[in-house]
Amino acid sequence: MKPMFNKVTIVGMGLMGGSLGLSLLDKKLAKNVTGLGRNLKRLQIARKKGAATGVTTDYKTAVTGADLVVIALPVMMIPAAFKDIKPFLSKDTIVTDMGSVKGAICAKIGLFDTGRNFVGSHPMVGSEKAGVEFIIKGLYEKGVCIVTPEKRTDSKKSASITLLWEALGMKVIKMAPKEHDECTAAVSHFPHLAAFAMVVSHEGQIRKNKAVIGPGFKDSTRIAASNEELWSEIILMNKGEILKNIDLYIKQLVLLSGVINDSRLNELKEYIKKSRILRESIK
Amino acid sequence: MKPMFNKVTIVGMGLMGGSLGLSLLDKKLAKNVTGLGRNLKRLQIARKKGAATGVTTDYKTAVTGADLVVIALPVMMIPAAFKDIKPFLSKDTIVTDMGSVKGAICAKIGLFDTGRNFVGSHPMVGSEKAGVEFIIKGLYEKGVCIVTPEKRTDSKKSASITLLWEALGMKVIKMAPKEHDECTAAVSHFPHLAAFAMVVSHEGQIRKNKAVIGPGFKDSTRIAASNEELWSEIILMNKGEILKNIDLYIKQLVLLSGVINDSRLNELKEYIKKSRILRESIK
Repeated sequence: MKPMFNKVTIVGMGLMGGSLGLSLLDKKLAKNVTGLGRNLKRLQIARKKGAATGVTTDYKTAVTGADLVVIALPVMMIPAAFKDIKPFLSKDTIVTDMGSVKGAICAKIGLFDTGRNFVGSHPMVGSEKAGVEFIIKGLYEKGVCIVTPEKRTDSKKSASITLLWEALGMKVIKMAPKEHDECTAAVSHFPHLAAFAMVVSHEGQIRKNKAVIGPGFKDSTRIAASNEELWSEIILMNKGEILKNIDLYIKQLVLLSGVINDSRLNELKEYIKKSRILRESIK
Repeated sequence: MKPMFNKVTIVGMGLMGGSLGLSLLDKKLAKNVTGLGRNLKRLQIARKKGAATGVTTDYKTAVTGADLVVIALPVMMIPAAFKDIKPFLSKDTIVTDMGSVKGAICAKIGLFDTGRNFVGSHPMVGSEKAGVEFIIKGLYEKGVCIVTPEKRTDSKKSASITLLWEALGMKVIKMAPKEHDECTAAVSHFPHLAAFAMVVSHEGQIRKNKAVIGPGFKDSTRIAASNEELWSEIILMNKGEILKNIDLYIKQLVLLSGVINDSRLNELKEYIKKSRILRESIK
């Protein structure tokens, strides 16, 4: 079988980019994978781990002749990276990203994506860990990937990107960028923010009574140990939705505060029952 | 070796009471375990599962001659249950409970505990499941139990209760009832409430985009599937602390809302870093 791509360039060889290179080569979806980055020493670690067939710090060398360029950088750097690679793209080169925010990224890239090279992607995998040290082959396997084509998007390129993620074992869901951001704010970005606030709010008891902390608190705050570099950017890039979520959540807390203050037992019971049934509906 | 207790009476043979009877008999800490409850059919299930040597619906039969009575009922029923058993207690009978709230329970029982029979306990184990169907032998093993002696508490009885939980494999921590309620509000009760609010707040997205919900959201809201009968009572019994926690948490969310609205990246990064380090300090 012919590989899906002759040359794939991955911009950024951290956990996400490195694991992608590893999977593309392992599944023979790409003949060559070029890892582009700033730190040659770290790029060489990625190559030695089998995440790339070649590495470089030069944009022109990296991107020229690529069928596919995947921007695997923190969200705030993605639009600028697109600008940097643009001079070396052919009309057929497909460019995608792996950013957790899509509205702001797709809008900014749209401003100068005159060749319609770009299709937005968000493979919803990863971990609290970051960096080339943690790359693994199966990272994308069985995950969900949201692809966010827009009206201006080249439909052939969008179809290829869908096939790519599916070939990596992912379930692909299509959404408009705005719809993506509403959805991920609710099920991922805002829950992270709420967990950060939960831990900081209880700093005193956490320091004082570690022995008493059980699995409930541990599970519910596990995501509070997430990487601050990545998450501060994700939250600011999706600030519109996050701010709406904060308001809605505070409204629920204020409502509960009133119910509790008045000792309205049945109302509280119904609220918890609603929560239980909703939570149980998630497999 | 002589069993620690000749006759133990457990009031309420649900998950907590039933599992306790099973463990006491299995570890030969009690010669006889009498299960007291309202529903004889369910009590007989508990006996058949090995959680009791005898069962009854009669307070007098159950409590007379007991060395130890454990009230294993939902928190709001504990003070009334103490009143019901009081006529049948001898001066040496030790009475404890397993309620998740201690301030209100110890205060109410203190009003009529003239024989100083009572020592408050809170074994911090359990699950989302409730009822005799789910009883298991190892429930108490390796858990943490908070024992809450007060000035008026009989120190010999308090020492026996500590030995009991330790013999069941638990780590015992002593706290005053008020200190217990501050601590458990922070590390358990309030996080449950916040998870209920999180799920209800995102009802629309949960119904619409189930396929997109990943392990982060699942873990952080697992406790939102808790039993509404138990948790509505726990929250109202500890309402003073819970209301304080809601206020403190809303303050953190409002602070974050300002930081995000102004795109203060470094401040947000520092906040998340603080959260990460605190969360990582919990094993």
